[in-house]
Amino acid sequence: MNQEITIVKIGGAFLEDQILLESFYTSFSELKGRKILIHGGGQRASKLSRELGITPKMVDGRRITDVRSLEVVTMVYAGWANKKLVSGLQGQGCNALGLSGADADLIRARKRPVSEIDFGFVGDVERVQTTALIRLLDAGFTPVFCALTHDGNGQLLNTNADSIAASLAIALSASYSTKLIYCFEKEGVLRDVNDPESVISEIDRYAFEALRKSGDIATGMIPKLFNSFKALEEGVGQVCIGSVGLLSGNAPKFTQIIL
Amino acid sequence: MNQEITIVKIGGAFLEDQILLESFYTSFSELKGRKILIHGGGQRASKLSRELGITPKMVDGRRITDVRSLEVVTMVYAGWANKKLVSGLQGQGCNALGLSGADADLIRARKRPVSEIDFGFVGDVERVQTTALIRLLDAGFTPVFCALTHDGNGQLLNTNADSIAASLAIALSASYSTKLIYCFEKEGVLRDVNDPESVISEIDRYAFEALRKSGDIATGMIPKLFNSFKALEEGVGQVCIGSVGLLSGNAPKFTQIIL
Repeated sequence: MNQEITIVKIGGAFLEDQILLESFYTSFSELKGRKILIHGGGQRASKLSRELGITPKMVDGRRITDVRSLEVVTMVYAGWANKKLVSGLQGQGCNALGLSGADADLIRARKRPVSEIDFGFVGDVERVQTTALIRLLDAGFTPVFCALTHDGNGQLLNTNADSIAASLAIALSASYSTKLIYCFEKEGVLRDVNDPESVISEIDRYAFEALRKSGDIATGMIPKLFNSFKALEEGVGQVCIGSVGLLSGNAPKFTQIIL
Repeated sequence: MNQEITIVKIGGAFLEDQILLESFYTSFSELKGRKILIHGGGQRASKLSRELGITPKMVDGRRITDVRSLEVVTMVYAGWANKKLVSGLQGQGCNALGLSGADADLIRARKRPVSEIDFGFVGDVERVQTTALIRLLDAGFTPVFCALTHDGNGQLLNTNADSIAASLAIALSASYSTKLIYCFEKEGVLRDVNDPESVISEIDRYAFEALRKSGDIATGMIPKLFNSFKALEEGVGQVCIGSVGLLSGNAPKFTQIIL
């Protein structure tokens, strides 16, 4: 039986809500065993963009990332969000180490080819440098990843945080028994986006297809579920979506993804 | 004889000049042995501040860092500057790993006490976590530090990059033969700030005092020289101030600090 590792992705809403954030710091710090955190920061990036007179452009929930937008997300994700989380976790005794995919060449990505849409400096994960990552884990650090990668030739790339979380979980599944938790401000995937009580306890591919067809599911949830199924298919042991309560095992409700 | 390590601090001007930056990437990547980079980013931080309607306030070359200014420097130093350098160095095959003092609890600082001036969230280095830093060096990474530290209780602090460089060099002197290089866009400390040819080849404490009294020395150079003397007194083997040519040993002129 392999050693366990928990990969937690938190949404940007955590970063804007001090109460939610404090409860996250405690739960994540208390989480036993090896762990990795991945965070977003899109809300703040859009806010900063507007303050700088740059209109954020999104297509299917993905940011069109031109040179100036890349500067904005780099400042917000790797700077503001990452160091806020790292210092906050350090304050709780969790030995956090902030990272982007460029650091130690941990995550290489390929710039998304221009088709109908030119996403600009957006990258899709190509490979995770598992050896270096395990070296950091073995040294007792808790990696905290922001949603940036690089192409290995000097170019930073904006990469979806949900996809990074799934890629890390998949890459580590060869060495660890991996659990992937998508943690956000709701209790799980909702059958009815307007009813916070309507948490679906289990979703398999059939249920997902039915939800997609019905159009009831929140748009942002679709790539998260795609990533979840991909993770399970590629060796990740468990994938859950829900509130911060999932970290301490105190979530009354949550969504488990099953194949 | 201890193993050698080179600690290089670069000024913010490098980050704004693509030609200077490219030559730095090459020289730093080619530098043999263990090495650490420390960078500033003050120019860009002031630019971003103004764009956001925050007037930068400086006293003796140090930034008065209120909550909003701390957000700005965190975004610029740990985000924009750090990840630009890390991805650029990775593009040259240097295994850079970006860090702030909060990461892995590497550099703790104490918030500067309020006296005549309240510097806000500015910290003075209290201790370097040498064991963790050596672990990263041993793992084959090249640490790239931005000018941020933390107090260990969740608070990030803005800390002068020259001081961080000296603190790291001093802390590592117990384990390595250390060389500290302050690298900037000039060839060294100038006798006459208006004459780029007037590089002083050696400065000891007496020469420094004479320069200070004469008022001819650039203001920004004074804390750098204080840090240099402190470093030499506390075990650092060699301290030089000069151009990027210092890294490849090709600098026709530079300033060597001696006790």
